[in-house]
Amino acid sequence: MMKTHHCGALGKEHVGETVVLNGWVQRRRDLGGVLFIDLRDRSGLIQIVFNPDFSGEALETGDKARNEYVLAVKGKVVERDEETKNPNLATGEIEVQVTEIEILNQAKNPPFFIEDGIEIDESLRLKYRYLDLRRPEMQKTLWLRSKAAKVFRDYLDENGFIEVETPILTKSTPEGARDYLVPSRVHPGEFFALPQSPQIFKQLLMVGGLERYYQIARCFRDEDLRADRQPEFTQVDIETSFLTQDQLQDMMEELVARLFKETKGVDIPRPFQRLTYADAMGKYGSDKPDLRFGLELKDISDLVANCGVKVFASVIAGGGQVKALNAKGCGNWSRKELDDLQPFAARYGGKGLAWIQVKDGEWKGPIVKFLTPEEIAALTERLEAEDGDVLLFSADNKKVVADVLGNLRLKIGRELGLIDESQYKFAWVVDFPLLGYDEEEKRYVAEHHPFTRPREEDVHYFDTDPGQIRAQAYDLVLNGYEVGGGSMRIYKRDVQEKMFQALGFSKEEAQEKFGFLLEAFEYGTPPHGGIAFGFDRLVMLLAGRTNLRETIAFPKTASATDLLTDAPGPVEEKQLEQLSIKVAIKQPAGKA
Amino acid sequence: MMKTHHCGALGKEHVGETVVLNGWVQRRRDLGGVLFIDLRDRSGLIQIVFNPDFSGEALETGDKARNEYVLAVKGKVVERDEETKNPNLATGEIEVQVTEIEILNQAKNPPFFIEDGIEIDESLRLKYRYLDLRRPEMQKTLWLRSKAAKVFRDYLDENGFIEVETPILTKSTPEGARDYLVPSRVHPGEFFALPQSPQIFKQLLMVGGLERYYQIARCFRDEDLRADRQPEFTQVDIETSFLTQDQLQDMMEELVARLFKETKGVDIPRPFQRLTYADAMGKYGSDKPDLRFGLELKDISDLVANCGVKVFASVIAGGGQVKALNAKGCGNWSRKELDDLQPFAARYGGKGLAWIQVKDGEWKGPIVKFLTPEEIAALTERLEAEDGDVLLFSADNKKVVADVLGNLRLKIGRELGLIDESQYKFAWVVDFPLLGYDEEEKRYVAEHHPFTRPREEDVHYFDTDPGQIRAQAYDLVLNGYEVGGGSMRIYKRDVQEKMFQALGFSKEEAQEKFGFLLEAFEYGTPPHGGIAFGFDRLVMLLAGRTNLRETIAFPKTASATDLLTDAPGPVEEKQLEQLSIKVAIKQPAGKA
Repeated sequence: MMKTHHCGALGKEHVGETVVLNGWVQRRRDLGGVLFIDLRDRSGLIQIVFNPDFSGEALETGDKARNEYVLAVKGKVVERDEETKNPNLATGEIEVQVTEIEILNQAKNPPFFIEDGIEIDESLRLKYRYLDLRRPEMQKTLWLRSKAAKVFRDYLDENGFIEVETPILTKSTPEGARDYLVPSRVHPGEFFALPQSPQIFKQLLMVGGLERYYQIARCFRDEDLRADRQPEFTQVDIETSFLTQDQLQDMMEELVARLFKETKGVDIPRPFQRLTYADAMGKYGSDKPDLRFGLELKDISDLVANCGVKVFASVIAGGGQVKALNAKGCGNWSRKELDDLQPFAARYGGKGLAWIQVKDGEWKGPIVKFLTPEEIAALTERLEAEDGDVLLFSADNKKVVADVLGNLRLKIGRELGLIDESQYKFAWVVDFPLLGYDEEEKRYVAEHHPFTRPREEDVHYFDTDPGQIRAQAYDLVLNGYEVGGGSMRIYKRDVQEKMFQALGFSKEEAQEKFGFLLEAFEYGTPPHGGIAFGFDRLVMLLAGRTNLRETIAFPKTASATDLLTDAPGPVEEKQLEQLSIKVAIKQPAGKA
Repeated sequence: MMKTHHCGALGKEHVGETVVLNGWVQRRRDLGGVLFIDLRDRSGLIQIVFNPDFSGEALETGDKARNEYVLAVKGKVVERDEETKNPNLATGEIEVQVTEIEILNQAKNPPFFIEDGIEIDESLRLKYRYLDLRRPEMQKTLWLRSKAAKVFRDYLDENGFIEVETPILTKSTPEGARDYLVPSRVHPGEFFALPQSPQIFKQLLMVGGLERYYQIARCFRDEDLRADRQPEFTQVDIETSFLTQDQLQDMMEELVARLFKETKGVDIPRPFQRLTYADAMGKYGSDKPDLRFGLELKDISDLVANCGVKVFASVIAGGGQVKALNAKGCGNWSRKELDDLQPFAARYGGKGLAWIQVKDGEWKGPIVKFLTPEEIAALTERLEAEDGDVLLFSADNKKVVADVLGNLRLKIGRELGLIDESQYKFAWVVDFPLLGYDEEEKRYVAEHHPFTRPREEDVHYFDTDPGQIRAQAYDLVLNGYEVGGGSMRIYKRDVQEKMFQALGFSKEEAQEKFGFLLEAFEYGTPPHGGIAFGFDRLVMLLAGRTNLRETIAFPKTASATDLLTDAPGPVEEKQLEQLSIKVAIKQPAGKA
């Protein structure tokens, strides 16, 4: 029996037609000798009916079917009686009167029911991912992902980008995250690395004159995983030559707007807001601010530098800062609620969180007594404090203050319902610092990556104060997530050498790790720059999900395991021998 | 200066316009104080002119430019004088009179000239791949590849296929080629494997009800490389549910025909020829026959079973066969040419190659005297022997005869110019044997892979003569290359278990390696089947190349090395420690 239609594609316009359907038994009901089955395929459900009047032997066969059996059925589409129409089902006005049936395969009772919104342990879903994928919400997300990839490709194709595949077996360049390594059989003792991104190859494609490149590329990072990380992930990888940063950003805005239009039907206003890194950190305590609500942080260091609150004054004297957040209308928070903010602040490194309640024109709280009326007046003005507000203060170094108040801002925003979940608020964050000082390693590390171009006017700081250099880098931020990031790249050998030097590479190290790139820069490298979009995360946001695993057909757990195939796993000794490696598990200390 | 046009896109219609171009210096000529530069970008070349009359200071700057310098120039498009027009250049009717110039980057003299058809060592090209990629023929091939991917995607998208990404970090299932392994840091002593294909995942997607899947997928095989193999390669991976083999083949024909139409403008006649494996081996001595010419092998075992040529008779008595090839019109081959065929035959395992020249109505050659007139008459008829022909005979077991005469057929076809290089001759080869007996391992191995569905009517042979089972498998063959291969898959647990048993797996082994798949078959697996196209090879054939490396931006050498980045390479001891492995290089025997 050759399938003629998808189950969910049938409607009143097919009444009278004989159709053949292939699908799975969603549920069955036997009502007085008449068998009703909801048949499911990837398009949806349809009710098929077995009745002695028209089904003949098919009824007997159909009766053997259980949930998740795979059926092929032939039958006539008829309109249902008015009273049996089901408005909750897209195909609810019709049903199919079965005249022939073939059971294509049987099924055991599945470990969970195939429907949306099931509340079961995620590990069970991952172990039986092939059943989980039958659920409509999973199918919908995977189709959205497929569609999103197509929109990216169509746009890039129309705009003169060439798709190029770059190697997965490549060289280890341990700067940044840990590499996954692949032992070489042909070259004993040597290793390939899986790419953390196609960065170097895409730059070499620009040296190669391809001018506009893209790839939806698999990337790998052997890091300790969080909910929004996977050991292998997908990025839409883009590189261009001869464009300015503004031109590239404009083009990428157009691309992203089209993505949201074609997948969600949403119009995204352009141009996107552009925020400097300094502003983003200053106002929102984050380089990926959620701009769907205000609740901005205010620096009050100047107002409290000499005040009677000792911790404020001493932090400022020590080079730190004091900032505040006005939680509008939260003046009625209980003492317990205010106390609970202390451990929250501590989670982000804060040593405490001072608070002041504004009630009936009066300021209340432990620190109020140390403030002069003039200071209170100045703070009232700066923080726009009114009756019913709570003012929250963090005093520490810049980073801790940003972390504490930035996260507090998000928490309060969520709790007060300030966030309009239907909104998509994009922004570019620009002018990132090129280098950050790593206290542990006692050296500068690249904030973006070692190939990021410094702003022309800051290059001289390489010799005096590398931390001052601003990068020609830009992150695309959406609703508090970084969904893309890129930069203009260094394309002159001397600048790249300065950069490696600033990162603490010796000439020999730079030569050994990146000699081929330095050499490439000497053969006519065009000015170039690019961006990479986090594809999994974009799909997650498009799908309205909060977990990357929901957007990936076969994801890994937080301990980098595939519960379905049980990977990783042991291998045969012979395989290791061929690769010239041995397992060498270190005994935990004390067990040796 | 903001680029306005591509160099190669300019034509007479732009005369009078002021344009800005970005590109590389292809060559420069100084003629009496006037400077001519051929400027190149990915679209082609244009002549730009610096003349004291209109260039001002730009002439001085332009004069510093050398080959492969990167320039931005502004200037007016003018028509060339009639006598200076260059009909060999697409833009040869015009030139650009430069008024402004910026040298965007300098270049050392490149190690080879950036033009088509250079004859230099390939290893130099691979080391400087970024320069090699600037050559027009490389750009053309990469664009063709990008375009081919788009045609695949467009067709599959229009036909209801969903693109799904499957894992690269997966489980080692050592059946077939060697796996690349990836040590796990989180699970000491355990390993991921890079996929040889997404086979199991695409089948699980069918179990998951996605019905039509595709992916342009990277695959990995750690094998000893030949000219047409790469350690990582790309396949267009396709799987469908509920289709018959014929339906799937029809759809794939339509897809391939569209690919050739849209990339080459060629109409491929359909339906494609379908040949059984037995016929292909019998007539062409190959399961991927080049059908652009005839020169078929003829079985003459019946005619010579009792003849006076002892080697013929004894081979047949021993279960072998004798086949012949009529090299039409080669009767004038010299004795030396005929003798040279002996080592050729030996290369394919042949112990010799008997020959007979037909000249002036007479048969000549060492074996003629052992044949009766009746035998000669019968052979004349079977082989359609005429004056001027040479008959070539191979007597051995089936495999050797096929190898010797199959390769001889190709050699003669090429040498006699029988092959029309402009033709694309597609065919399906079907009815492959399911299992082949591996003399070394003393067991059956899967000819396609262990998930291939046997023909229904042959299943009973599992218990009696597994070598007899024909598979529901099909290869797509083009001009002597296998460009795709697929099969209907097993979808019932009991059949899959029989298959594993035939392959010599114990129940425990089958469970350990493929338990999750066997279990999946119990939860309502639909009938399914698919195909994979060798994307690199298809692009190679589309581009008219003979080496896969020409179709890949950053390929590896035959010893699996990337000459550009120098991968694989040594890694830091710390990295290995984190992965709980050690290098353990075996001393070659005798050195221990």
